[in-house]
Amino acid sequence: MTDSKSFTHVDAQGAAHMVDISGKVPGQRQAIAVATVQTRSDVIQLIEENGLKKGDVLAVARVAGIMAAKRTSDLIPLCHPLALTRVSVSFQLDRENGQIEITASCAVQGQTGVEMEALTAASVAALTIHDMCKAVDPSLQINGIQLQEKTGGKRGHWQREQNHADS
Amino acid sequence: MTDSKSFTHVDAQGAAHMVDISGKVPGQRQAIAVATVQTRSDVIQLIEENGLKKGDVLAVARVAGIMAAKRTSDLIPLCHPLALTRVSVSFQLDRENGQIEITASCAVQGQTGVEMEALTAASVAALTIHDMCKAVDPSLQINGIQLQEKTGGKRGHWQREQNHADS
Amino acid sequence: MTDSKSFTHVDAQGAAHMVDISGKVPGQRQAIAVATVQTRSDVIQLIEENGLKKGDVLAVARVAGIMAAKRTSDLIPLCHPLALTRVSVSFQLDRENGQIEITASCAVQGQTGVEMEALTAASVAALTIHDMCKAVDPSLQINGIQLQEKTGGKRGHWQREQNHADS
Amino acid sequence: MTDSKSFTHVDAQGAAHMVDISGKVPGQRQAIAVATVQTRSDVIQLIEENGLKKGDVLAVARVAGIMAAKRTSDLIPLCHPLALTRVSVSFQLDRENGQIEITASCAVQGQTGVEMEALTAASVAALTIHDMCKAVDPSLQINGIQLQEKTGGKRGHWQREQNHADS
Amino acid sequence: MTDSKSFTHVDAQGAAHMVDISGKVPGQRQAIAVATVQTRSDVIQLIEENGLKKGDVLAVARVAGIMAAKRTSDLIPLCHPLALTRVSVSFQLDRENGQIEITASCAVQGQTGVEMEALTAASVAALTIHDMCKAVDPSLQINGIQLQEKTGGKRGHWQREQNHADS
Amino acid sequence: MTDSKSFTHVDAQGAAHMVDISGKVPGQRQAIAVATVQTRSDVIQLIEENGLKKGDVLAVARVAGIMAAKRTSDLIPLCHPLALTRVSVSFQLDRENGQIEITASCAVQGQTGVEMEALTAASVAALTIHDMCKAVDPSLQINGIQLQEKTGGKRGHWQREQNHADS
Repeated sequence: MTDSKSFTHVDAQGAAHMVDISGKVPGQRQAIAVATVQTRSDVIQLIEENGLKKGDVLAVARVAGIMAAKRTSDLIPLCHPLALTRVSVSFQLDRENGQIEITASCAVQGQTGVEMEALTAASVAALTIHDMCKAVDPSLQINGIQLQEKTGGKRGHWQREQNHADS
Repeated sequence: MTDSKSFTHVDAQGAAHMVDISGKVPGQRQAIAVATVQTRSDVIQLIEENGLKKGDVLAVARVAGIMAAKRTSDLIPLCHPLALTRVSVSFQLDRENGQIEITASCAVQGQTGVEMEALTAASVAALTIHDMCKAVDPSLQINGIQLQEKTGGKRGHWQREQNHADS
Repeated sequence: MTDSKSFTHVDAQGAAHMVDISGKVPGQRQAIAVATVQTRSDVIQLIEENGLKKGDVLAVARVAGIMAAKRTSDLIPLCHPLALTRVSVSFQLDRENGQIEITASCAVQGQTGVEMEALTAASVAALTIHDMCKAVDPSLQINGIQLQEKTGGKRGHWQREQNHADS
Repeated sequence: MTDSKSFTHVDAQGAAHMVDISGKVPGQRQAIAVATVQTRSDVIQLIEENGLKKGDVLAVARVAGIMAAKRTSDLIPLCHPLALTRVSVSFQLDRENGQIEITASCAVQGQTGVEMEALTAASVAALTIHDMCKAVDPSLQINGIQLQEKTGGKRGHWQREQNHADS
Repeated sequence: MTDSKSFTHVDAQGAAHMVDISGKVPGQRQAIAVATVQTRSDVIQLIEENGLKKGDVLAVARVAGIMAAKRTSDLIPLCHPLALTRVSVSFQLDRENGQIEITASCAVQGQTGVEMEALTAASVAALTIHDMCKAVDPSLQINGIQLQEKTGGKRGHWQREQNHADS
Repeated sequence: MTDSKSFTHVDAQGAAHMVDISGKVPGQRQAIAVATVQTRSDVIQLIEENGLKKGDVLAVARVAGIMAAKRTSDLIPLCHPLALTRVSVSFQLDRENGQIEITASCAVQGQTGVEMEALTAASVAALTIHDMCKAVDPSLQINGIQLQEKTGGKRGHWQREQNHADS
């Protein structure tokens, strides 16, 4: 899993810059990222019960995640602006463990990958859940924000090793 | 630590809205949030060595976190716009464990708290580190995004219980 | 209902500027605006049926309207930035007439009113419905974007005359 | 005029997402949208007289509409980001009926249409006129925000039926 | 004119942060900034002639400057968000010398000054003129972006020394 | 160096619009812009000394300039949105003359040039330095914001004439 030991965002003098992707071949690129919201069983139940009625907590978080994906290059200083062709955000509720697993998936036809877009979507969806639940669980935690899989680009397909994800 | 069992962002019909804070007394409010970047020892070393020269990875992440705090209400749908009076983001590097602990602190003179602003600052700083390190460690993880402490408001001082933080 | 015959956004030389509100007394101000989406009965039925399951069209439009209210001064050149203390957006479906009536309500403690914030929220919620329904009804129309009521400020309470609203 | 009865923004489970346009063929796409500002004759006269001097009300509204078109995907949650190649906004004043007809036209070389961009430009131009005239006519109304014509894409040319537009 | 020799944006460890203004007394603060566009006589004539008809170059630049002032804290990393109460941008054309002098003025009731807001308004107005004139004068220069005067705050009134401005 | 005498941003009726670039051939385009910050020797020394430690003033200004380049079409009303493929900002300190020369360089594969992106990056980097130094030198000036060189597009290579730059 080790990669080349240099920071592509830092030039020869050590100064930050937005790296040159002019020479890269445009292609179809996709990325999937996840995040886990750790709260309590009763909070998951509250979300589910409201969900049975109008599903609002997850609906708001989904919209927030999708909109954040589109603003990634506005938030992360050295990210390239990208015309995303697809964004989706989904949720898996685990009442027993008081968890919500968030999965964000992005695609683009472009010269660079969409890892940061998927990670940003998952993170902002998680922060939105935090915001809407913080009155009932101020101790809520967000964990495991990580890239799960990506396709396209020079390096081709990359998938997270399971044991690393579990550590 | 249990709080009232209702979602303040959801009205009587279960629809999302930005809750009314008109009646709240303005006051000095502060919040501290943290996040942990989990990478490898050699990546921390790379950051430190660049840091000894120009410190750019952390400098860029710090700026990104501060700017994101100011855009919180633009990202999190039901957050109120706030005129922050202070934002700071700091980093603690742990080379042995391959970790960076991020601490974000915000303050406002206003009618609602700055928890989401501190959490957003810590999250975006972490995502920026992820962006700048992903070429060398695509498996990098962000964990433990959580509120650490807050002061001000009707409920007064709140501090994270240590055992909960460790779980 | 006639008011003073001068444009407050235009100075003595006829040039646009953001008018000086420094001298105004801060106070509680509220505004309610409406908009009507005109589509077909079968489209309303589609929205309702989805709504019975997840309510997504209206949930997305509601979030869009709330977020747009917070960005009003970023969109309308001469609007003052305001720290809104409340925003809500609600919908009334009329299947028979193929209509959705949108009502947006905003409040602030400040030196100027929130009419534009409420109007922007209603407009962007309507545009979002348009976006989500345009594949099934490209002829969809948005009508009657207007202020319904406002309170606070030097002029006090203002309410739309009913016959005018009907014209 | 009836189209397929399904919401392209809603996936199989009824959850909102930004639909996949990866497989669409890029092409030249254009759209024209309109909106009508309904005010009073004397307000139109005021705008015209200022217009004879500096034309500011319409000039400000035109800039606001053009800038809003570029921010459409930032406002409408499920819109794709697009690199617009042309935006124009024009006005037709009708003093007798106290009306301003706004026409917005957009073009892109891309995989999806620019209907929402044209509709957003017309809407924000109308809201800007509302803002600048609300001191003299708080009852001002915005009507008839609708797509007039579009070209490009799989379905080719679409034009509004006149009788529908008049209804 | 010399001030204390320390950077208020840099903390004890030399790291950037948004300085704490919580303890400052809110008050009325104003600032005036200027910028000079240096082009050719014939370009000024073109602007004036268009100006006699519709005044668009200056009207667009004025709107751009006003809108930019409101986004200052979004552009300048360590600036505090401020609810501006007034912004104006004016132009003085000097055909003989091929110059446009831009003056921007801002006000706020707040805990920190509006120097950066006025400077940003003047700069973006100048950049907008550059954009609109670059086809006829790609060599156009922007000079003398500087603070002219400010009032309010602990240090009270400050005015630029004329000889310094001339240097 | 004289060019065609017409404003491409102004249509036949003199109204502003975002010009049609649909017919332009996409190609590799680059631009370099500069700006000069004029302050005092002792301020440059302060920046350098902090720079020897953490380099923060320049690091913050660099990030601000890069982020601003990506937001150019959001700030300059008639600029087209562009997916920049490269942005860099560098600084040359001249302690003797109390100056900082800023150079910004941008590239895109597109239908229009990146002059405004490079000029915006240089300007916002300069404004950020102004912000961070204004407590020690409120008289600081920004001069010589200008295009230095551009390549690509119908007109091909353009380079600033040296004597003009010196005037």
